[in-house]
Amino acid sequence: MSRHSADVIVRSLVDDGWVEVIEPTGSVVGRPARRYRFHATVGHVMGVDVGGHKVLALITDLDGNVVASARHLVQPEDEPSIRLAAMDATIAECLETAAMTATDIWALTVGVTGPVDSTGRTSLFSPMPGWSGVDPIGHLSDRFSCPIQVENDCKLAAMAERWRGVAQDADDIVYVLAGMRTGAALIIEGKVRRGFGGAAGEIGWLLPVRWQRSVTHLESCGSLPSGIEPNEVLGWVLAACRDGDQEAQTAVKRYVKDLAVGAAALVLALDPQVVVLGGGVSRSADVILDQFNAELEKLSMRPPEVRVSIFGDESVALGAVRLGIDEVDAHSFGERLLQPVAPRRVAG
Amino acid sequence: MSRHSADVIVRSLVDDGWVEVIEPTGSVVGRPARRYRFHATVGHVMGVDVGGHKVLALITDLDGNVVASARHLVQPEDEPSIRLAAMDATIAECLETAAMTATDIWALTVGVTGPVDSTGRTSLFSPMPGWSGVDPIGHLSDRFSCPIQVENDCKLAAMAERWRGVAQDADDIVYVLAGMRTGAALIIEGKVRRGFGGAAGEIGWLLPVRWQRSVTHLESCGSLPSGIEPNEVLGWVLAACRDGDQEAQTAVKRYVKDLAVGAAALVLALDPQVVVLGGGVSRSADVILDQFNAELEKLSMRPPEVRVSIFGDESVALGAVRLGIDEVDAHSFGERLLQPVAPRRVAG
Repeated sequence: MSRHSADVIVRSLVDDGWVEVIEPTGSVVGRPARRYRFHATVGHVMGVDVGGHKVLALITDLDGNVVASARHLVQPEDEPSIRLAAMDATIAECLETAAMTATDIWALTVGVTGPVDSTGRTSLFSPMPGWSGVDPIGHLSDRFSCPIQVENDCKLAAMAERWRGVAQDADDIVYVLAGMRTGAALIIEGKVRRGFGGAAGEIGWLLPVRWQRSVTHLESCGSLPSGIEPNEVLGWVLAACRDGDQEAQTAVKRYVKDLAVGAAALVLALDPQVVVLGGGVSRSADVILDQFNAELEKLSMRPPEVRVSIFGDESVALGAVRLGIDEVDAHSFGERLLQPVAPRRVAG
Repeated sequence: MSRHSADVIVRSLVDDGWVEVIEPTGSVVGRPARRYRFHATVGHVMGVDVGGHKVLALITDLDGNVVASARHLVQPEDEPSIRLAAMDATIAECLETAAMTATDIWALTVGVTGPVDSTGRTSLFSPMPGWSGVDPIGHLSDRFSCPIQVENDCKLAAMAERWRGVAQDADDIVYVLAGMRTGAALIIEGKVRRGFGGAAGEIGWLLPVRWQRSVTHLESCGSLPSGIEPNEVLGWVLAACRDGDQEAQTAVKRYVKDLAVGAAALVLALDPQVVVLGGGVSRSADVILDQFNAELEKLSMRPPEVRVSIFGDESVALGAVRLGIDEVDAHSFGERLLQPVAPRRVAG
């Protein structure tokens, strides 16, 4: 295509509000190439974190600016039907807040706990009862015609850290999601590793690295108020530890000691530049960071830098949004032409 | 450059024996592009495995065909001066066998135990006394003007398996070197992972994954003949186990149980397609393979396929040769022009 023809087409896209000019940055010798990108607000993506304790949905534009969010609480032991209903309600509420319908969403990503197989199921393992048989893509494809992806929560959280979080400068990252459950994901040469069967990062499965027992120290803390909700245990014990409660301090010490063993296993396997600590503990990281660093130094050969996530509990949903934007980019600038409406999902 | 000019130059290189034509394979429509490569025998590389029990040197042509080898025995507890003298003697003998001098070698790679830093030293850790202060590149650069590289033994062995061994079809590989010492290396997307500081794969450092104690079961086997050489323990116990010696069977059972824990840690971290079992046990793998597979199945979430190396104790030297050939390729086809003599090392 001649420069002139391309110009005519691109100008009409600019006039119609589809694309915008990227202004050249820095000094340029000669006439700079004209560069364009989608106008961020012509399309939107949705990321949904379906966790043990909550469902969180975010809608963002193609730059990742959040335009709406919604949240529903669930329980780890909830049946799949209850969790799916909470997911549906959260998605509907988020769309309503944004004054959108499902056809306005160009890509949808669902984050779940457990390794995700090639069909979007957690067939190998899910900590949530019955969930390993659930097909989130099938469940959502009656409403959404856009591409739908399912990915492991830790892998999405790790993507979020490299995108907008505390590890933007690092290519080799071990991400540890430490809350009332402990999980991990690996970024190597800037790419999240899925592994041959989607199960990379599942070091916590191995009893000797102690992640499975680590949280029991918090749950059995003697000074815990009776009747405390399970999802409030971590926050309570960390706060009590900071306030000088001796039983809480012992519980936290044991918890961090065990947390560091699994983290050290990943550090020794990968020798990453950075370890990112995310999940529930990241909001009270001041209580544990020194000890965590000290344990990691004791256990590993070359202790990496440890950084604490600043995303609170939104990291998984943010990573889901990022994966959706990647999907839009792949569709729009790949072999397929941009559709005038949201791209349709390729039948799975 | 015009096609004609290029032709004239390349033809003279063919006439002089530097390059040869690669015949087109498969069916080609139209006139196929003419492709050339170095005549494999115009250059040679050397790989040297400096291990605990032996030094092994190989000289190969640029296709990896072995033209000479030499071997000297050493002891794990030998001082660096003794090990360096053995290395020098092995290199000299290998050159002599090939009727070559150091200037005929286009690239030299030394494989050592322990993580290798950016200066070619094992400054973080070496199991060999005093060796972490040794600078193999400095030691060899008085004789060799070619590029000299130092790399970790397990990483080289893993490269050999993907190059010519049992994992040529796999891109994600966990390599376990299991002998009287246990080590590991990771290949991800076809590339050996060095890690941020060269220490990827060092899972054995972590006591809870049991590699450090695994070999003690063999060393304390009650039926071991008194006075047996340390480097013969593994072979003896495995052979006795195969012959029905009950104490040997118990020792091997405990050894494999521990070996599988560290292997499972890497499998759970990476979710590889293949685990390659190399090192001393690979020659008696029939004795342990079923139990190793069973343990790995128990411990991991998605058990990978386990394959046994067929390289015996030459895998590290073979990988060293491969890294040398890569270095020659990078020099010859990269930004630098081919020198009429062996390429000179860039001053480190």
